[in-house]
Amino acid sequence: MTTIRMVGFDADDTLWRSEDYFAAAQSTFESIVGAYVGDDARTTERLYAIEKANLAVFGYGVKGMALSMVEAAIEITESRISSSDLQRIVQMAKEMLRHPVDLLPGVREAVEQVAADYPVVLVTKGDLFHQEAKVRDSGLSHLFRRIEIVSEKDVPTYRRLLEEFAIPPEGFVMVGNSLRSDIAPVLELGGWGVHVPYHLTWEHERQADIPADAARRLRSLTHADELPGALRAIAAG
Amino acid sequence: MTTIRMVGFDADDTLWRSEDYFAAAQSTFESIVGAYVGDDARTTERLYAIEKANLAVFGYGVKGMALSMVEAAIEITESRISSSDLQRIVQMAKEMLRHPVDLLPGVREAVEQVAADYPVVLVTKGDLFHQEAKVRDSGLSHLFRRIEIVSEKDVPTYRRLLEEFAIPPEGFVMVGNSLRSDIAPVLELGGWGVHVPYHLTWEHERQADIPADAARRLRSLTHADELPGALRAIAAG
Repeated sequence: MTTIRMVGFDADDTLWRSEDYFAAAQSTFESIVGAYVGDDARTTERLYAIEKANLAVFGYGVKGMALSMVEAAIEITESRISSSDLQRIVQMAKEMLRHPVDLLPGVREAVEQVAADYPVVLVTKGDLFHQEAKVRDSGLSHLFRRIEIVSEKDVPTYRRLLEEFAIPPEGFVMVGNSLRSDIAPVLELGGWGVHVPYHLTWEHERQADIPADAARRLRSLTHADELPGALRAIAAG
Repeated sequence: MTTIRMVGFDADDTLWRSEDYFAAAQSTFESIVGAYVGDDARTTERLYAIEKANLAVFGYGVKGMALSMVEAAIEITESRISSSDLQRIVQMAKEMLRHPVDLLPGVREAVEQVAADYPVVLVTKGDLFHQEAKVRDSGLSHLFRRIEIVSEKDVPTYRRLLEEFAIPPEGFVMVGNSLRSDIAPVLELGGWGVHVPYHLTWEHERQADIPADAARRLRSLTHADELPGALRAIAAG
């Protein structure tokens, strides 16, 4: 028997689409830059290298992505890119930030069912302003007891949150699409992870080491509608 | 007699310098753009108009500033700006984000004294990632019971925070440099405001209506070292 005291949900690509828009932006970026340097210029790798180097200074989110893209476009084209093409990158970021929230199939019903049984909280990382706008727009915010927007989802962050919630790790279940950000740190603290993979996951989020002895507290689903059953199984097991 | 239950501090331009760096960035922007269009092109006004229009989509902070500057530079120069000049804008943003925190004179001592008498919290708006970095870098974070990074400092935000803290408005004192963000909404809720003006304040933050009947709960200081005395006077008054 496990007493589930609280269920945490990730937001981007767990509740609603996000990576699709980043992937589409990346394709647009590659076609803009490709017009100057052709398809063979390792554009994807060079953009990723710049984004990764800039994470420490920009953090996650659309605005950092756009600034990294401006930097990368100028570098990869050796300053030949036109300013109107750079303007397209800035405008693309604004469109992403204004895009309506697109809930994933079955999510509304799954969160409603879980919220009827347990206190649920939202734990999301990235740009505060954009995440708040998406939570407002989602129509789900009334279901969440707390909405925590953090800059990094690592062991110290989850430890601090669980202390604030006054919940022991073994009573906390985190639901999300990223092994690195949603699952591994919670397992490490002694909590439970429910992994709902998304068809697109940023390279950075796919890397995680799950110790063998923690794997028994990990469940994997293919669809949100399996979540209430998975939680019942955890509680009963 | 007033029982002060909690003291909130703003961060940027109350605890440490911030607007100086934005003002310097704006000068650099004007000199970059001025090389294309001369000094008479209403560059300042046009940048401010674009920044203000973009606030609803970017929020506050360096990254949004930089994206607005890229957009404005292209628009004001009618796409004549070189990509290497645009790269300078991106690099300037990165330097601002990496700049060490520069505490204002007397702030460390004032916060230490206030924290010895009352629970203190930090309430700051803007970019989550950058604000967290500055709090860590400031050496003051251990003095604050809570650090709240919010996307907008308005009446609903302060109402929610005071509910979370379980503090009645009349027991809350907010200390800050912005009448619009730090003082007016707290006075409106029935709390106290201690205004510590900064020599530079962004135009957007200078606009606020203080109702006459709320002005008795407003104090103005010229220097941080007057703060402990001002709080004693509020408590005694």
